[in-house]
Amino acid sequence: MAAAMAARRARPVRVLVDMDGVLADFEGGLLRAFRRRFPEEPHVPLDQRRGFFAREQYRALRPDLADKVASVYETPGFFLGLEPIPGALEAMQEMHAMHDTEVFICTSPLMKYEHCVGEKFSWVDKHLGPQFVERTIVTRDKTVILGDLLIDDKDTILGGICSPWEPPGTWPAGIGEREPKPPVYRFLLPFSRVLSQATRRPRPGSTSCSPAVTTSTWPWPPQSDGCFLGATTGGRS
Amino acid sequence: MAAAMAARRARPVRVLVDMDGVLADFEGGLLRAFRRRFPEEPHVPLDQRRGFFAREQYRALRPDLADKVASVYETPGFFLGLEPIPGALEAMQEMHAMHDTEVFICTSPLMKYEHCVGEKFSWVDKHLGPQFVERTIVTRDKTVILGDLLIDDKDTILGGICSPWEPPGTWPAGIGEREPKPPVYRFLLPFSRVLSQATRRPRPGSTSCSPAVTTSTWPWPPQSDGCFLGATTGGRS
Repeated sequence: MAAAMAARRARPVRVLVDMDGVLADFEGGLLRAFRRRFPEEPHVPLDQRRGFFAREQYRALRPDLADKVASVYETPGFFLGLEPIPGALEAMQEMHAMHDTEVFICTSPLMKYEHCVGEKFSWVDKHLGPQFVERTIVTRDKTVILGDLLIDDKDTILGGICSPWEPPGTWPAGIGEREPKPPVYRFLLPFSRVLSQATRRPRPGSTSCSPAVTTSTWPWPPQSDGCFLGATTGGRS
Repeated sequence: MAAAMAARRARPVRVLVDMDGVLADFEGGLLRAFRRRFPEEPHVPLDQRRGFFAREQYRALRPDLADKVASVYETPGFFLGLEPIPGALEAMQEMHAMHDTEVFICTSPLMKYEHCVGEKFSWVDKHLGPQFVERTIVTRDKTVILGDLLIDDKDTILGGICSPWEPPGTWPAGIGEREPKPPVYRFLLPFSRVLSQATRRPRPGSTSCSPAVTTSTWPWPPQSDGCFLGATTGGRS
């Protein structure tokens, strides 16, 4: 087991980074575009946004607003036009240059994928360059992507520090209970600071693969919190 | 180790299926569209196609034909208009219905991704339905996708029956040398028959993760051969 652990550490830490809400300012872009398109309608200010799905909060505000807000992010050009979250691009280039990490962008498309998937690749090309196009993965299910660490803003966390790619019962006994990997912490802390000037660290000893955070407890945008670690399934819709 | 093997067998076999050349008739569609667009130019008949990249064979035929053939598959509508390979859709639905397999589509976009990525999702939606959109992964690097089996037509094979997701040195000792998994064989044989009326089985005892087949030895389209098992990196370009 010691030899296996050493072998694992010998390779770079593979970091998967979500796009919307982590690299691209989905919520800021959505609010601006919604107010521009529906200036007479009520809106949810950023500091009152709760839960992962804007559509659901708008539905609760008034049922017909759900389709209206969805029509905004389903409009051609919406995803390509999103602003980068301050510091995120620099953090990606910094990670990319590190010898002991390899970085992939891991993003879920809308079920109305027509414009969104191509624009996600275009956004990466425009803001990060072709070397990151090579490292972009579009998938509705992120649990099938093999990585050590997923940096994501989605509310349903299936991992914590326990990588979802090693769920209980599917890997040899012992792997799921290994100690936290030092390189992950060494990397994570500066990246979180760049993103949000603060960190949300996994709870000490949290190695079980169970939901750690739910929509109802999670405010958006992050204030004293950073990004989450864990696995997510499905995209915004 | 025996308990770990039992645990692995308890979950479904995850099968990743490539699109171009496996589900969608890329080569047939390319030849038809090339001849329609450049009727005066020489072309490579299907039974003379060699190697993975059509562009390279056309370049060898005459250097300026490389860009011409590429312009065909970079045209909007090319990927969406590809015909399904006979039997492939039925095989996918059959696999999807099996209790002991879970199927994902795993496809690489062109580096000129503008039309291709959206059209790949549209193709899946049109021919296989939204449940497969949920199971579509677009990535230039397939080695980071966690699966038991990859069905692909790409020439550079990094796996054989040894899953590329478990390369030497990155997983606990012993895993790389495990015996072939019976469920894979049980599943593979009927699927290959459906696809091409023949099978290319991994060589007996081939459990090492090293290239097994190279471009120069591989004819396209498959004649007495089926699809390959292994890992691929990058898309056609």
